Amino acid sequence: MSEWFAKGRSIDSVDIRDRAVQYGDGLFETIAIRDGQPRFWPLHIKRLQLGCHRLGIAAPDEAELAADLDAALHQCAFDTTHCAAKIVVTAGTGQRGYRRSGGAGPSVWIGVFRAQKIPASAYKDGIDVRLCHLRLAKQPQLAGLKTLNRLEQVMACAEWDDSNIFEGLMLDPDDRLICGTMSNVFIVTANSLKTPAITRCGVAGIMRQHLLAIIADAGIDCEVADISVGQSLAADEMFLTNSQFGVLPVRRCGQHTWSQHAVSRRIMALAAQNDVPECRI
Amino acid sequence: MSEWFAKGRSIDSVDIRDRAVQYGDGLFETIAIRDGQPRFWPLHIKRLQLGCHRLGIAAPDEAELAADLDAALHQCAFDTTHCAAKIVVTAGTGQRGYRRSGGAGPSVWIGVFRAQKIPASAYKDGIDVRLCHLRLAKQPQLAGLKTLNRLEQVMACAEWDDSNIFEGLMLDPDDRLICGTMSNVFIVTANSLKTPAITRCGVAGIMRQHLLAIIADAGIDCEVADISVGQSLAADEMFLTNSQFGVLPVRRCGQHTWSQHAVSRRIMALAAQNDVPECRI
Repeated sequence: MSEWFAKGRSIDSVDIRDRAVQYGDGLFETIAIRDGQPRFWPLHIKRLQLGCHRLGIAAPDEAELAADLDAALHQCAFDTTHCAAKIVVTAGTGQRGYRRSGGAGPSVWIGVFRAQKIPASAYKDGIDVRLCHLRLAKQPQLAGLKTLNRLEQVMACAEWDDSNIFEGLMLDPDDRLICGTMSNVFIVTANSLKTPAITRCGVAGIMRQHLLAIIADAGIDCEVADISVGQSLAADEMFLTNSQFGVLPVRRCGQHTWSQHAVSRRIMALAAQNDVPECRI
Repeated sequence: MSEWFAKGRSIDSVDIRDRAVQYGDGLFETIAIRDGQPRFWPLHIKRLQLGCHRLGIAAPDEAELAADLDAALHQCAFDTTHCAAKIVVTAGTGQRGYRRSGGAGPSVWIGVFRAQKIPASAYKDGIDVRLCHLRLAKQPQLAGLKTLNRLEQVMACAEWDDSNIFEGLMLDPDDRLICGTMSNVFIVTANSLKTPAITRCGVAGIMRQHLLAIIADAGIDCEVADISVGQSLAADEMFLTNSQFGVLPVRRCGQHTWSQHAVSRRIMALAAQNDVPECRI
C-alpha cells in the first residue's frame, strides 16, 4: 500500500513531460519513519542536497521539504507511525532533448509506504544472499548517489525468483564487491571490520553512513576500502545495512555459509543503542 | 510543441507508480515521421523488441503499436506530415522495490513532436562538436539499447552552453570514441569508413544501422570497430548520424577542423537516394 503527495496534495500521476519519466533525471531518498518522525533526516537531506548539486538540479528547501513530508505523513490514510517515506526530486518538466531547458523547476514527490515486515529470525539467524551476474558499471560521476537510473538494480533483481534469497550482492567489472541491490555490505576478517569504498559505483547508503559514524564513536576501526569478491566470501562474517531494516547478518551466499556472527551481533547491539532498535535481538 | 497519447487517448500525465517514473525501467524509440509515415519502422520495431527482450519486458504487439502510432499522428492538433514520434515502453506500474511484480503489464506512451529545424548550412558546411568530459560507463548488458536511464547523456549535455556546438561526442573510460549524446559517429581515414562498435556502451542508432546497410549494398566497406579518440581526431573526415537529421558532416571538434568532406558527401548522397532526402545538399 502506498500513497503519494506533491506540495501537500495527494497525487496519483505526474506530468509525462517530467524528466524523471523521460530520462530518469532525478534522485530519491527512502527514509524510515519511526514514531512518526523521519529517522536520520539530517543524513538524508545532506545526501539529497549533495546529489542535487552533483546532478545540477536545484535542491529543494530543507524546511519546506520537512513540512511537506510531515503533511504527507499526516494526510496518509494508513497509520504512519512506523513506515517508509520516499522523496523523489526530479529536474522537472522540460522540452524534448537531454539538455535541461528552464522549465518550472524541480518536481518533488513524496510517497508513503507501509514498512516491510522483516521476521525476527532474519536478525537472529541471518539472511541468505546471492552473487548477481550483472556487474555494476563504473561511473564515478554518479557513484554514491541514489539516482532514478536504476535499471542495473532492476535487472539484477530479475536474476532470481527464490523467496529464500533476501538480497543480491553486486560486483563491479573488476570482481570487487560493491553493495547489495538495496543495501550496503560489511565484512569481518580476523575481528576487523571493512566495507567497500563507493567511489566508482554503488549507493552510499544512509544506514552505512550512520553505522560508520557510531562505529567510529565507539572506538572500533572500520576500513573503507576496495574488497574483492574472494576476500568477501573468505571473510569470517558478513552483514548488510539498509535504512529500513537496519543491520542483518548474512548466513549464506551460494556455497558459503557463516554460522558465527559474533562481531555482527556487537555491531547490531551498538546500532540498537543508536536509533536502530529493530536490530536488537 | 508536443502531444502525448496512450491507447489512442490524449494524455498529459502517467501513473506515479509506473516503473519508468521510479526507476527508468523502460525503453524508447524516436522515429522520424516523413510524409505522415514512420521512417524505418521495421528497424525501430526490431530494436524495440530486442530491447524489451533484453530488459525482460513484454514487447508490445507490432500491429497494435503501428495502429496506435497512426492514431496518435491523426489525432495530433498540429501537422504531422513531417515530425518526430517518440514511443516509450515501460515495465508498467508495480509495487515499491526493484523487483518487477506482476502488475498491469507494460505501459506504452506515444509522443508527437514538431521536427527540429536543421539549417541547410549544417548539411553543407558541417557542424561543430565537442568532446564531453563525462565518460560513458561500460555496461555490456545495456549497450546498444535506448533505455530510459539517460542521466549520462543529460549530464554530458549540461557540460556546454554554446549554441554553436551542435553535439557532444562521448568516450568510454578507455579513451575510445563511442557516439554523440544523441547521434552515432563515423570517421573516414585514407578513404576507409569506420564507426565505433557499440558493445560496451552507447546506443546503436537506427540511422547508423540504415547507413551500414546501404553502404554495404553500395559495395563500400565500413569497419565496425574500436576507435580511439586520437584516431578519431586524426581522421580525414567525420560525420554524425541520427534518425531525425540523417547525416551531418563535422567541421570542427575543439582545435581540430575538417574542411574536406568528400567521402561524407558521397555517403550523404547515398543516404539521400535511400529514404533520407534531408541530407541532399
